[in-house]
Amino acid sequence: MANERVLASWRETGARQAVVDFVEAVSTEGSRRFVTPSERIAVFDNDGTLWSEKPIPVQLDFTLFWMAELTERDPALKDRQPYKAAVERDFHWLGDAMVKHYRGDDSDLTLLERAIESAFEGMAVDAFATEALGWLGQASHPTLHRPYLSCRFEPMVELLRYLEANSFVTYIASGGDRDFMRPFAEALYGIPPERVIGSSLGLDFNTGGDDTELLYKSKIEFFDDGPEKPVRIWSRTGRRPLVAGGNSNGDIPMLRFARTGDRDALRLLVLHDDPEREFAYTAGAEEALERAKARGWTVISMKDDWVTVFADS
Amino acid sequence: MANERVLASWRETGARQAVVDFVEAVSTEGSRRFVTPSERIAVFDNDGTLWSEKPIPVQLDFTLFWMAELTERDPALKDRQPYKAAVERDFHWLGDAMVKHYRGDDSDLTLLERAIESAFEGMAVDAFATEALGWLGQASHPTLHRPYLSCRFEPMVELLRYLEANSFVTYIASGGDRDFMRPFAEALYGIPPERVIGSSLGLDFNTGGDDTELLYKSKIEFFDDGPEKPVRIWSRTGRRPLVAGGNSNGDIPMLRFARTGDRDALRLLVLHDDPEREFAYTAGAEEALERAKARGWTVISMKDDWVTVFADS
Repeated sequence: MANERVLASWRETGARQAVVDFVEAVSTEGSRRFVTPSERIAVFDNDGTLWSEKPIPVQLDFTLFWMAELTERDPALKDRQPYKAAVERDFHWLGDAMVKHYRGDDSDLTLLERAIESAFEGMAVDAFATEALGWLGQASHPTLHRPYLSCRFEPMVELLRYLEANSFVTYIASGGDRDFMRPFAEALYGIPPERVIGSSLGLDFNTGGDDTELLYKSKIEFFDDGPEKPVRIWSRTGRRPLVAGGNSNGDIPMLRFARTGDRDALRLLVLHDDPEREFAYTAGAEEALERAKARGWTVISMKDDWVTVFADS
Repeated sequence: MANERVLASWRETGARQAVVDFVEAVSTEGSRRFVTPSERIAVFDNDGTLWSEKPIPVQLDFTLFWMAELTERDPALKDRQPYKAAVERDFHWLGDAMVKHYRGDDSDLTLLERAIESAFEGMAVDAFATEALGWLGQASHPTLHRPYLSCRFEPMVELLRYLEANSFVTYIASGGDRDFMRPFAEALYGIPPERVIGSSLGLDFNTGGDDTELLYKSKIEFFDDGPEKPVRIWSRTGRRPLVAGGNSNGDIPMLRFARTGDRDALRLLVLHDDPEREFAYTAGAEEALERAKARGWTVISMKDDWVTVFADS
C-alpha cells in the first residue's frame, strides 16, 4: 500500500512514521516483528481519542438531556446534583467531575453514576438505542458549532481503516457506555456493535407472553476505565491488543496490557494541544504523558501531526 | 448452494428441512422473511449441543483433574466435596449436581462453584489456557472411548459451516467457562476466541515492572446459564440472535430471546435419544422439550436426524 494514499490527514511527522513503521513491521511476512493476522487486534478509547470529549463527554450531554426530562416528571429533583446541573446545563460542574475522577476524587462522579444508574432503569435496550440515536441526530456540540456526529477525528478514522487494510481487527474500548456508542459507532467509525467495548449497566431478561426484552437495571455492571479496560478487552476478544490508543490516565492499563515480554506493541496517546481547531488540555492525562515520554509511547499532537481534525474544517 | 453438498451428516428428515427452509428464507433477497446479513447471528450452547456432556461436562473433568492436583498440596481437602469426588472420580455425584441445578436445586452446584472459584485463584489467563489445552490434548471420554477432542457432533459442525456460508456469524453461548472453551474452540468448531461466550471468573489486572497479566479471582463473575444467556449475548454482540441452538432448560431464555414480535427465528433443541452412539437422557431438558412442542421449535433427534454423530464412528 502506497503511503501517500493512506493516512492522508496526517502530516509527515514522527507520529505518522511510528505508526507506519510499526504496522509494516508486524504485517510483513519474514519480518522479525511479524505478527500473525489473527493476533492483530487494535483497541481505541473513544472520548478524547476518536472524537471530542470537552467540555463534557457527549454521552453525558445525552444523559443531561434525559435527566432534565426526568425533572419534568419529578420537579423535586431540580434542586439536587447532578439534576440541577442537567437543567441549568452547567457543564463546568460536570466536566470537573471527570477531572476529579482522573485525579482520584470520585465524589462527584459517584453522584453522577448514581443518577446515570437510575436514569434508564427499566428501559429496554432497543428503546434506549432509539432514544440515544434520535437525540444524537439533532444535537450539536456546545462550542465547536458542529453536530456531535461531525465531531469525530478524521485522522483517527483513517488510522482505523489503515489498520484494517493491514488485517487488524479494530475495537472501541471506552469508559463510555457500550450501548450508547453502539447505535452510531458503525456509521461514524465503521465499527460494528460486537466490536464496541464500554461501560455497562446491569441487564434483566424480562418475559411477558411471547415477548422478551432486556431491561436496564438501576445499577452499573462495570465502569470500563483504568484497570477494568484490560479485563473487558480480554473478556470480549480473548487476546491482548497489538495496538492501543487513548488520551488519558484511564487508558494507561490498556496501553500497558498491549505489550508482552516477547512482543512489542504500538501505544498511542492523543495530545489535545490544539485550541484553535479543538481544545488544549492535559488535565487527567498527566501520568499518561509522563509514561509516554519514559516508555517511548507515541504521542500524537493534534496541532502538529494532523492536517485536519474534523472532516469539513 | 446445492443442498446435497451441505449438511451431509444429516438425514433427509424434517429437522434438516426446517433448517434449510429457514436459512434459505432469510438469505434470499426479496423473500418476505429476508434478514440483512449483519443481523444473521447464530448462537449455540456447547455442552450437549456441540459436543457430549455426559456423564459430566468435559470442563468439569478438567476441574476434577485440577482439584485432585490441589489435594496433593492440601490433603485435608480429600474428605470434602467436591474434592472427594474429584480424587475418587465419582462422576455420579458430579453429574447429579447439574441435573439438580436444572431442576432448581443448587446445593451441590454451589459447592462445586465455590471449589471452581478457588481452584484457579491467582492463575494468569495465559497459564490457564496452556493447562486446559495440555490436559484436553491427552484426556479421553470415560465411556465413549475416544479423545475428548473427538467428541464434537459432526452434524453440528456442518451446521455452523452451512450458516456461515449463508453469511451468518456464529457464536458459542455456553454455561461452560469462556476461557476453558477458547483455546480449543477454533480448532474444534472453527469459532475464534472473540465469538466464544460463556461463564467467567472475575479477573484482576496485575502489574509488576513492565509486565502485565490478568489473574483469576476466586470469584465467578457470572454463570452464563438461563436468563443470563440473553444478557451475555447482548453484551457481546449487541444484537438478538436469529438462530439459537441448545439442549436443556438453561437454554430456554436464549432460544426465546431469538424471536421478536416482527421477526421469526430458528430455534433448535438437540434431543439425546441415541444410547447406541451417544447417550439417551431428557433430565434437565423436560421444560425445553415441552416448550419446543408447544411453540414449534425444531427438535433434533440424534438417533433419527443424524447419519453420523462423531467423525470416525
